[in-house]
Amino acid sequence: MAKEDKIGITVKKSDNFSEWYSQLVGEQGAQLADVRYGVQGFVVYREWGYALLRKVYELLEEVAENDDHNQFLFPIVIPEENLKKEEEHAGFTPEVFWVTKAGNEKLEKPLALRPTGETQIYPMYSLWIRSYKDLPYKAYQSRIMCYRNEMTTRPFIRGREFCFFETHDVFATHKESLDQVKKDMQMMKQVAYDQLFIPFYFFKRPVWDKFLGADATYSSDTIMPDGKRNQISSTHDLGHNFAKPFNVTYTDEKGKEQFAYQTCWGPGIIRLVAALISIHGDDNGLVLPSIIAPVKVVIIPVYFSDKKAVNEKIRKKCSQLKEEIKKLGYKVKFDDLDESPGYKYNKWELKGVPLRIELGPREVDQNKVTIVTRVDRKKSQIDLKNLKKEIENSLKHNDEQIKKRADAYFKGNTKSADTLEEVKKIIEEHRGFIKAPFCSVEKDGEECADTLKAETRGGNVCGTPLEKPETPKNKKCVVCKKKAKHIVYIAKSY
Amino acid sequence: MAKEDKIGITVKKSDNFSEWYSQLVGEQGAQLADVRYGVQGFVVYREWGYALLRKVYELLEEVAENDDHNQFLFPIVIPEENLKKEEEHAGFTPEVFWVTKAGNEKLEKPLALRPTGETQIYPMYSLWIRSYKDLPYKAYQSRIMCYRNEMTTRPFIRGREFCFFETHDVFATHKESLDQVKKDMQMMKQVAYDQLFIPFYFFKRPVWDKFLGADATYSSDTIMPDGKRNQISSTHDLGHNFAKPFNVTYTDEKGKEQFAYQTCWGPGIIRLVAALISIHGDDNGLVLPSIIAPVKVVIIPVYFSDKKAVNEKIRKKCSQLKEEIKKLGYKVKFDDLDESPGYKYNKWELKGVPLRIELGPREVDQNKVTIVTRVDRKKSQIDLKNLKKEIENSLKHNDEQIKKRADAYFKGNTKSADTLEEVKKIIEEHRGFIKAPFCSVEKDGEECADTLKAETRGGNVCGTPLEKPETPKNKKCVVCKKKAKHIVYIAKSY
Repeated sequence: MAKEDKIGITVKKSDNFSEWYSQLVGEQGAQLADVRYGVQGFVVYREWGYALLRKVYELLEEVAENDDHNQFLFPIVIPEENLKKEEEHAGFTPEVFWVTKAGNEKLEKPLALRPTGETQIYPMYSLWIRSYKDLPYKAYQSRIMCYRNEMTTRPFIRGREFCFFETHDVFATHKESLDQVKKDMQMMKQVAYDQLFIPFYFFKRPVWDKFLGADATYSSDTIMPDGKRNQISSTHDLGHNFAKPFNVTYTDEKGKEQFAYQTCWGPGIIRLVAALISIHGDDNGLVLPSIIAPVKVVIIPVYFSDKKAVNEKIRKKCSQLKEEIKKLGYKVKFDDLDESPGYKYNKWELKGVPLRIELGPREVDQNKVTIVTRVDRKKSQIDLKNLKKEIENSLKHNDEQIKKRADAYFKGNTKSADTLEEVKKIIEEHRGFIKAPFCSVEKDGEECADTLKAETRGGNVCGTPLEKPETPKNKKCVVCKKKAKHIVYIAKSY
Repeated sequence: MAKEDKIGITVKKSDNFSEWYSQLVGEQGAQLADVRYGVQGFVVYREWGYALLRKVYELLEEVAENDDHNQFLFPIVIPEENLKKEEEHAGFTPEVFWVTKAGNEKLEKPLALRPTGETQIYPMYSLWIRSYKDLPYKAYQSRIMCYRNEMTTRPFIRGREFCFFETHDVFATHKESLDQVKKDMQMMKQVAYDQLFIPFYFFKRPVWDKFLGADATYSSDTIMPDGKRNQISSTHDLGHNFAKPFNVTYTDEKGKEQFAYQTCWGPGIIRLVAALISIHGDDNGLVLPSIIAPVKVVIIPVYFSDKKAVNEKIRKKCSQLKEEIKKLGYKVKFDDLDESPGYKYNKWELKGVPLRIELGPREVDQNKVTIVTRVDRKKSQIDLKNLKKEIENSLKHNDEQIKKRADAYFKGNTKSADTLEEVKKIIEEHRGFIKAPFCSVEKDGEECADTLKAETRGGNVCGTPLEKPETPKNKKCVVCKKKAKHIVYIAKSY
């Protein structure tokens, strides 16, 4: 047998999440991203990792298009003057990468690598949108990259180059903007929770934590196994803040020129994959819902070195089985490399393939195979007569278990506290979300938020839930002890 | 009625192709790309234009994956040292854009915006490929951008930023490389000709015109209505030229380290769309094969201003019809804007929608509609009982006519010549491809090629056909009059 590369994760997720994550993402793990490219914060997304990103993109494209968004594509560079127009809103300038040369010649005007799309898109909206007939105008960019010179970087968590998806919508009225915020929330739920089983909260951020150019910012936050918040989307209600400097106007039915209302939605592509990896994964590797698994079924032959004729029969049967499963519409892999079955089990468990089929000398004559579901390693013998039904059921079982586990995990990561001492204790012991009474999410609450952050070494007020926010009865702010107006959610964040 | 924007193309394609092309691509045309972004050679692909690019990507992704390529994604920047390693091969350096700053800080090492993928990908191949078990290794990048500081730029023809798709394959033997060249050709045929009806030749380029880093370059060339060659793909047989400097090796079955053979295939995404626009389009706008049309059917109501009740019936019927067509699986648009029917006809003809359905007071009570095929404006009355069949047939008719027209166009654009005078005459009168006897496509033919180019003010030797090359019998090179070894194809190019 040929030499086998060393694979596998050597730490437990519960013991050392950070190391577990790095190993799982890297060469000995599921080979999702390669950090050896030679430029900090710029990683190579390998085949398996890119397949996950691509599926996330596809799911988002589908919901965005069902919500009447059309896709367009803007250049990667932004002229300096556009960016300057937004400086007061966004404040990205210190993080911007600049293209200054072509060949040996200095460019007349330096070009920024796009940190986000607003300042490149809205000047064109000013040209394109003319009449009320053009509204609502809903469009998006997908499978693009943005650039910010971040200090600390980590694959799928934070990069200097990162995968991006953004909708940019224009309306005649503010009511339509607020409706769009709810639609964005709905799309996020459809993709992240309904299809990928990532539970999350949808918050309205406190005013001190909103995007500078927005009237209000709404976000989807989940929690990572190290107890830190992972923001997986944001929607900004931009009001007229961009329409005015970029002159996004329309002529109304009466012939009068009006400023338009704008919103934008940015699901975090890499952050969604980070949540997927971290929440569902276990000590043996990735665990993938069937909708996103690049391969749904892997067939592993169990050969015996001294039985050449039997091995040939096994090989043939595996090939047939592969074709049958392919015909059923499932992406399937027959792993016939010169490696031991045990090694192959590990390899495909690391990659999170939902179903493994084992076929050895005992099964080959019986028209039976062993099927193993990844999430719980449950083994069953199935009759090949019922192949279609058995695969369907096994995938369903795998998905249900993943969802159940994720829901329980998320529930266990939300605790309540009524005093600052309790908040501190929870953050020290475990982190996660903490529900607590708080004086105000308007400007007058910022001082308490600063105190909270200092006292808890990094606890942030994430905001109030957009749906069913709780009103505290006779409770006091955990910081200033004045009457609490809200129950807010607190968490440390990346 | 509301004010209608001015639309339409004011010149004939046969009179002034260049102006026709610009108008068709721009605001008054099909709104494919917007050159008003403010940075030369960086255009915005608007919704309709990006839909065409995206479909080309999807078709290419499909054939590449059927040929066992997996998708990955590399950063947009390349470290300076990688690029320098390839300088002798590629010679892109004078055209490279450089990122030199982040915020106000100078970067330690400048980063190149990727001009093409080889120098970023092969250092990683050197890490990833270790054993014969890893071969063949086939992967690709899609929906990415490349950057070169081109002097003249034009939407879909040449940009400083341009859409890119590239496969990078690694084999143990050179025979497998040559097989892959043929597979690349096959994939190109499946996408460009079989599905998009763009006819082309597949050439082996003369040695003086190959990619510097390749042992041989193969290309797909079509012809544009101005008689210029449009290269829509290239495959490079890289031999060991990159494997050696970038150390792409594998351990063979006997444990011995070997250099790998490499090929790469790059279909020209924007060039394919340029060919599609230019070859199929007519004086009324785009003409699109149904596979790529972002909308297959547009429904246009014919209202009469004095008949409110009838109009309401028409509107309702159009909505029902839209839902029915949608259920049949076709992308359909009901254009109910406050514009005249004639204006709407023009608008959707400009965009190349294959089928138009007109529904007015005469049709509304009869369960009949008028259907018009874009390519020939053929009108027929159809019974809504047979909707499915009628749409199928009309789309088929539209496709067949497009293909027929393109085939005839391509055939008419290949002429033969036996003397330099004849070549010059054809090039002056019309251009197109010219088949002519030529001394040699090896190094010893380069001088004749230079003379030919000078004498014909730009005529290039495109190469010899990969399949069925003709051997001239007793013919003399059109330039040096020595015995001709090949019948080559000559054309001016962009």
